[in-house]
Amino acid sequence: MKEERFFYAPHITSDAVLPKDEAAHATRVLRMRPDDQLWVMDGEGHFYDCRIEVTGRDLCQVRVIKEHTVSKTWLGTLTLAVAPTKNIDRIEWLVEKAVEIGVDRIVFLSCDNSERSNIKKDRLERIVISAIKQSRKPFKTELVELVKSTDFMHSCDGQKFFAHCMEGERRYFLDEIARNSQNCTIMIGPEGDFSPSELKCALDCGFIPVTLGKSRLRTETAALMGVSMMQIAKEINS
Amino acid sequence: MKEERFFYAPHITSDAVLPKDEAAHATRVLRMRPDDQLWVMDGEGHFYDCRIEVTGRDLCQVRVIKEHTVSKTWLGTLTLAVAPTKNIDRIEWLVEKAVEIGVDRIVFLSCDNSERSNIKKDRLERIVISAIKQSRKPFKTELVELVKSTDFMHSCDGQKFFAHCMEGERRYFLDEIARNSQNCTIMIGPEGDFSPSELKCALDCGFIPVTLGKSRLRTETAALMGVSMMQIAKEINS
Repeated sequence: MKEERFFYAPHITSDAVLPKDEAAHATRVLRMRPDDQLWVMDGEGHFYDCRIEVTGRDLCQVRVIKEHTVSKTWLGTLTLAVAPTKNIDRIEWLVEKAVEIGVDRIVFLSCDNSERSNIKKDRLERIVISAIKQSRKPFKTELVELVKSTDFMHSCDGQKFFAHCMEGERRYFLDEIARNSQNCTIMIGPEGDFSPSELKCALDCGFIPVTLGKSRLRTETAALMGVSMMQIAKEINS
Repeated sequence: MKEERFFYAPHITSDAVLPKDEAAHATRVLRMRPDDQLWVMDGEGHFYDCRIEVTGRDLCQVRVIKEHTVSKTWLGTLTLAVAPTKNIDRIEWLVEKAVEIGVDRIVFLSCDNSERSNIKKDRLERIVISAIKQSRKPFKTELVELVKSTDFMHSCDGQKFFAHCMEGERRYFLDEIARNSQNCTIMIGPEGDFSPSELKCALDCGFIPVTLGKSRLRTETAALMGVSMMQIAKEINS
């Protein structure tokens, strides 16, 4: 499976054509032609071994030769909830890396101390697609746009963890306590940390404080460590 | 301790002046003046509570009021050994993040399948200094310029782990096996993976293959996960 012959097409079985961007990449950049082989992924657990039937300007029509279905080994979803950082580049790399390491859902929070009240979702979606292709992820990470932090806390189910800057209390290691096949969420404080009322709300909603080590981490680094820990917990427990 | 009042000066006790870059930042950007308070770190386990005595163009002479010494909780060194990636940006963010999470030494390897044979050490050093200031790391991460992979393997002592792309054999979790107060090294394969002779050399030299989960990771992401795992192992075992 050559790197460049992976394409993302969410509706390949009904449409039989690649989305415009992907078709342009196949036909113009890679100069692929009828009968060339390619892999299509739908981001929902399927890989398709395909052959090109027709090419044209921004058009790449394919025939599916064989379908490969990937089952989830972990039945729950892994969610990262994080406030976007002031610097947009740091969100972008976080999304790329979190997808690579593996997370089902990234929820962007609007916190009392948030430094940013918007994200560029289209751009982040493109980063997600590029990362799932690069790392051959069968399931596409879902991005959820800004949700008020306390609304998210109240609606969140499964195992719930959060990392923040307060010190003193006993905090658990995420990898000691995440359990197989449950929904699992790690929530990371914004650059100005959670406000006292947000902290109270998190505890009231059953979020367990976790440590990510003694280092003083930037928001996006803490988020990435949280995702790493969830993946390792999943690996150990599944 | 305000963010902006942290400065790096490796020889503050003998020189009593900030290095030129740091002095310019203090006097021109922050407009600090005599009697203003600042924190100086030497990257060797000391923080100094200082007052400015004299300022001038790119000059900032200080008086040390009090010294704070930080002891190491882990007596060994944590080393990340990694081949620089083709894309220099990815090395730069790796250095920033690895320093933030915590690593004593980053060794850049020259591998059979390396995509890059040089790094910009001055620029990476500035990234290290910025990251230790931002994350208040008492010890500065050492950068070691390109070392031939097999030379590094032969010279490496302590606990030695490596992550590569080969599948099939039993691989250990880094956090299960790292032990307190020993030197600990994680070596990450280049973008084209280790060559068969490098793999053989690593095993001959006592490197233990470890898994970083099932995801197909880019070099820099694998390196960052390796550093996270070492930090968590250190946290658990120290």
